[in-house]
Amino acid sequence: MINYPNKKKVNISSTNSNISRGMNLEKDLNDSNTFYKSINRALIYKKPTPIQVVKVDYPSRKHAKISEAYYQIPSTTDYNGIYKGKYIDFEAKETKSKTLFTFQNIHDHQIKHLLSVIEHGGIAFIIIRFSSFNETYVLDAKQVIDAYYTSEKKSLSYKEIKSIAHLVTEGFTPRLKYLDIIDRLYF
Amino acid sequence: MINYPNKKKVNISSTNSNISRGMNLEKDLNDSNTFYKSINRALIYKKPTPIQVVKVDYPSRKHAKISEAYYQIPSTTDYNGIYKGKYIDFEAKETKSKTLFTFQNIHDHQIKHLLSVIEHGGIAFIIIRFSSFNETYVLDAKQVIDAYYTSEKKSLSYKEIKSIAHLVTEGFTPRLKYLDIIDRLYF
Repeated sequence: MINYPNKKKVNISSTNSNISRGMNLEKDLNDSNTFYKSINRALIYKKPTPIQVVKVDYPSRKHAKISEAYYQIPSTTDYNGIYKGKYIDFEAKETKSKTLFTFQNIHDHQIKHLLSVIEHGGIAFIIIRFSSFNETYVLDAKQVIDAYYTSEKKSLSYKEIKSIAHLVTEGFTPRLKYLDIIDRLYF
Repeated sequence: MINYPNKKKVNISSTNSNISRGMNLEKDLNDSNTFYKSINRALIYKKPTPIQVVKVDYPSRKHAKISEAYYQIPSTTDYNGIYKGKYIDFEAKETKSKTLFTFQNIHDHQIKHLLSVIEHGGIAFIIIRFSSFNETYVLDAKQVIDAYYTSEKKSLSYKEIKSIAHLVTEGFTPRLKYLDIIDRLYF
C-alpha cells in the first residue's frame, strides 16, 4: 500500500499537542475517579468518545477490525455519575493560555445539556485546567452558562476564573481532590 | 489493495444479525429518550460504544480518519442519566430465544456496576426484549444480580421473567413507555 504524502499516519496521542494536553487532565480525572470508586465514595466515569464506524473488516471469525471511522461531536458532556445519591455531570477542559478560557471548545449543545442537568435536579459544573500554571478549577455550571450567553468576548479571563471558581487541591490519591469542592458547593 | 478471501468487508449494521437485532431495541430506546428529553421528563443517554483507536490518518488538515480501531468491552452499562432528580442506570439486552434469557451477554463488571449504583443510592435495572414475542420488560437490577450469582443455569427463563419483570407498554411517543414502570417501582 502506498503512503501518499498527504496521508500521514500519526499516533494521535504523541503528536497532536492539543489532544495530548487534554489527555493529561483526562488521565488525572480518570485516576481520581478510579480512586473514588475504589473507596466507594463516588461512581463517576468518562463517557467513551463517540465514533462513527463506517467500515469493519473481519480478519478472522472472532475479530472485528474497524478500518474506517470518524470522530463525532459529543452530544453531551464527558463525565457523569452518582455521588451521595445525586446525579453529577461535568465537562473537563484544558488550556495553555495564561490569560483566558475561551468558549470556543464548548459546544452549544453541551451548554444546553448542563442547563438541563440543573433543571432536572442534578449537579453540573466544569473543570478547567490552566496547564501553564498547573492549576485546576471547579466552576459551577450556572456561572459558565451565564457567561456563555452574556459575555461579548465569549471567554472568561484567568482573573475572573480565579475569583469565581474553586482551586482543586492536588495530591497522590486522588490526584485531583475535586469532590471536596463538590461537598462544599452542593451538599 | 487486494481483498484477501478472509478479509471480508462488511457493513456491520446490515449483515450481522446479532448486532442489527440489538440495534432495534437501541433505536427504540434512543427514540424514547429523545422524546422524554423533548418534554423535559428525563435526561437519559446511551453511552457511545468504547473503541480503541490505533491509527489515525489526516487526508486533509481538518479531517481525521480513523483507519485502525477495535471494539472494547464496555466497563459500565449502556444507558444512564437523571430522572426526577435521581441517578438512573441500565443495560438493555435483546434475545431471539423464546424460552431463556442467558447471562452470557452480561459482563461480570456490568453486574458489579449495577450493584454499585444501588449502593450509591441510584436506580438500576435491565431492559430485556424477547424479540420473538416483541415483548420488552423492565427487570429490577437486584433481581438480576441475585439470579446472576445464585442461578446454576446462568439464565432466567422467559416464564420467570414474565412473573418478576414488568412489561413495557409500547406506543408511538414514546415508543417504549418504560419510565411509567420506573415511576411505579422506584417513586
